[in-house]
Amino acid sequence: MSGASLLTLRSAPVALGPRRAEVTLSHGTVQTPVFMPVGTQATVKTLSAGDVERLGFEIILANTYHLLLRPGLETLERAGGLHRFMGWPRNILTDSGGYQVFSLASRRDVSEEGVRFSSHVDGTMHLLTPESVTQTQIRMGVDIAMCLDECPPYPVSESVARDMMERTLRWAQRCRESWRKTEGTATRLFVIVQGSTYPALRKECAERMVEMDFPGYAIGGLSVGEPKEIMQEMLEVVTPLLPVDRPRYLMGIGKPEDILEAVDRGVDMVDCVLPTRNARNGQALTFDGPLNLRNSSCRADFTPIDSDCRCEACGKYTRAYLSHLFRSGEYLGPRLVTLHNLSFMVEFLRQIRTAIENGEWTTFKKRFLERYTA
Amino acid sequence: MSGASLLTLRSAPVALGPRRAEVTLSHGTVQTPVFMPVGTQATVKTLSAGDVERLGFEIILANTYHLLLRPGLETLERAGGLHRFMGWPRNILTDSGGYQVFSLASRRDVSEEGVRFSSHVDGTMHLLTPESVTQTQIRMGVDIAMCLDECPPYPVSESVARDMMERTLRWAQRCRESWRKTEGTATRLFVIVQGSTYPALRKECAERMVEMDFPGYAIGGLSVGEPKEIMQEMLEVVTPLLPVDRPRYLMGIGKPEDILEAVDRGVDMVDCVLPTRNARNGQALTFDGPLNLRNSSCRADFTPIDSDCRCEACGKYTRAYLSHLFRSGEYLGPRLVTLHNLSFMVEFLRQIRTAIENGEWTTFKKRFLERYTA
Repeated sequence: MSGASLLTLRSAPVALGPRRAEVTLSHGTVQTPVFMPVGTQATVKTLSAGDVERLGFEIILANTYHLLLRPGLETLERAGGLHRFMGWPRNILTDSGGYQVFSLASRRDVSEEGVRFSSHVDGTMHLLTPESVTQTQIRMGVDIAMCLDECPPYPVSESVARDMMERTLRWAQRCRESWRKTEGTATRLFVIVQGSTYPALRKECAERMVEMDFPGYAIGGLSVGEPKEIMQEMLEVVTPLLPVDRPRYLMGIGKPEDILEAVDRGVDMVDCVLPTRNARNGQALTFDGPLNLRNSSCRADFTPIDSDCRCEACGKYTRAYLSHLFRSGEYLGPRLVTLHNLSFMVEFLRQIRTAIENGEWTTFKKRFLERYTA
Repeated sequence: MSGASLLTLRSAPVALGPRRAEVTLSHGTVQTPVFMPVGTQATVKTLSAGDVERLGFEIILANTYHLLLRPGLETLERAGGLHRFMGWPRNILTDSGGYQVFSLASRRDVSEEGVRFSSHVDGTMHLLTPESVTQTQIRMGVDIAMCLDECPPYPVSESVARDMMERTLRWAQRCRESWRKTEGTATRLFVIVQGSTYPALRKECAERMVEMDFPGYAIGGLSVGEPKEIMQEMLEVVTPLLPVDRPRYLMGIGKPEDILEAVDRGVDMVDCVLPTRNARNGQALTFDGPLNLRNSSCRADFTPIDSDCRCEACGKYTRAYLSHLFRSGEYLGPRLVTLHNLSFMVEFLRQIRTAIENGEWTTFKKRFLERYTA
């Protein structure tokens, strides 16, 4: 039993198509479709929790792997949990840490038990098991915890993809057991559908996970280098198999055009570092497409990034000033463009939700893409 | 003629002692004694102009040398001046750039004409003359411009110090001529008293500059490595010679204990990068003395830097969280501690002004130092 459903549909149920819903978590309701900014190390880079709150986000991501290494679970528990540690009163979803073990740890050894790895910070050895990952997230007090999974690289053979999927399924069962035994926790556990680019594996994985019954379903192992058509095909295989009353979370997606395709195929939640990482490199998101503030054309451009935007950067500062900040290596450049890009994402997702509510999705998507890619 | 006096005394005139005054400039009145934060490259590092405004500062510094190289005078003029370029509605004082030429330029050649140097940014050659420095500052639209001076290293022989002082006096005269010929400018020109650690030179320099008649007087070439007693002695030689109705600006002073000694000797204005630079290294200012957030004692300290402080850092975040941000190399650490340290400086200077107004200066100074150095 995964408990009462978290998700309330606000639009008509469809087998495969965009949906407008609300996800009710212990730190407030989240309007979906939603983009979740990434605060890997207990801060959305350059921003305080207060800044992110003022931007209007209802949920952010943090990362179990990074937080386990720094500041460590003991400090987080003594602080009264991750929310209090970072001063964030709304919802938090944590990655299980599995993905980071594969991408960051200097040595790692995967067995049926779990993943043993050497910290990229100080070389100390750590072990993540399905049970430890689940309990760590519960003890941090997060609203949504993710199961430990094994994310295949791209490309990968079908037999390797199947082996990883089978292990992911066994680990999911162990995570679920560990979570279920924790009485009184407000943390909800999401499972991650794997299966690489093989429709049959994706279908089988989704069906077996739905049988296990989780509060929410993530789709992982996409946006790892495969063609966009394949990502879209995998979504079309998976989302119709997921229960209509459970949130669907597509991991690691953040480009506006990709978000539209995901929402189009019934995804409720996405996260990505791109809007914030690109901001730190001087790339601003606008409804007319991305703008690189390091372009020489910005040096004497005394207009804001977007005159319709209500963020601090657009309200007071010109492209010329932002360009100067990036050329001069000033901290303020990354911060102002991060504020802008996240403000763009809030507005973009608001428009998506309104379009679905008003039955104007197809027109909205077409018009957005026409302007964005012009 | 330097025009109407900028300064209105709010405390009784004294030959040598603390004074409470107001300095009226074209972007508002400045309550003195005042600490001016440094925004070298048109940003107080990590902060937007809006942040600095909310902290309550009435005047900030910027740097002619850096701004000439990036973004360049043409961009600043096209933006409508430095205030508009950086979105700062209050007063700006600019360094002449002379000091930076000596400390940063890779090659430099000083002659009676001025200083020829190679940019540390792109190697291009530039020439600063007393006239060009003055006109550049006027064209940037700053409220207080500084004369080009030659700042002797420490230690230096008396004869070299005299030569540099004589050149500084000749350059001051040329700056003043150039400024005086600019009709309608709201920029006020301050001169810089030099003379190294030689009382006779300091005295002569001050007297000859007062004869020239400037809107304000800076004391330069101190806090360059000399013992504190010598800095204090130089102030005691110089400030009694300066007109009572003109602002006195001690350049490059920012430690609380040094500010107290400067105010004690009749200084109205100080500036320094220390509160902001130290913030970026994790050092927080408190009334109980500096606190290094990288100390291991902070890792599990769930109290704010200062529970009496009303800055964003102290209102929402613990030492443990700030410690984590610094250990993790997150942008947010420098920003939050910069906000705190500047908030501390605002409050510290407010207390200084109140103590002078209430005739409680000696007691205040003693009590502050007892607690700060305990």
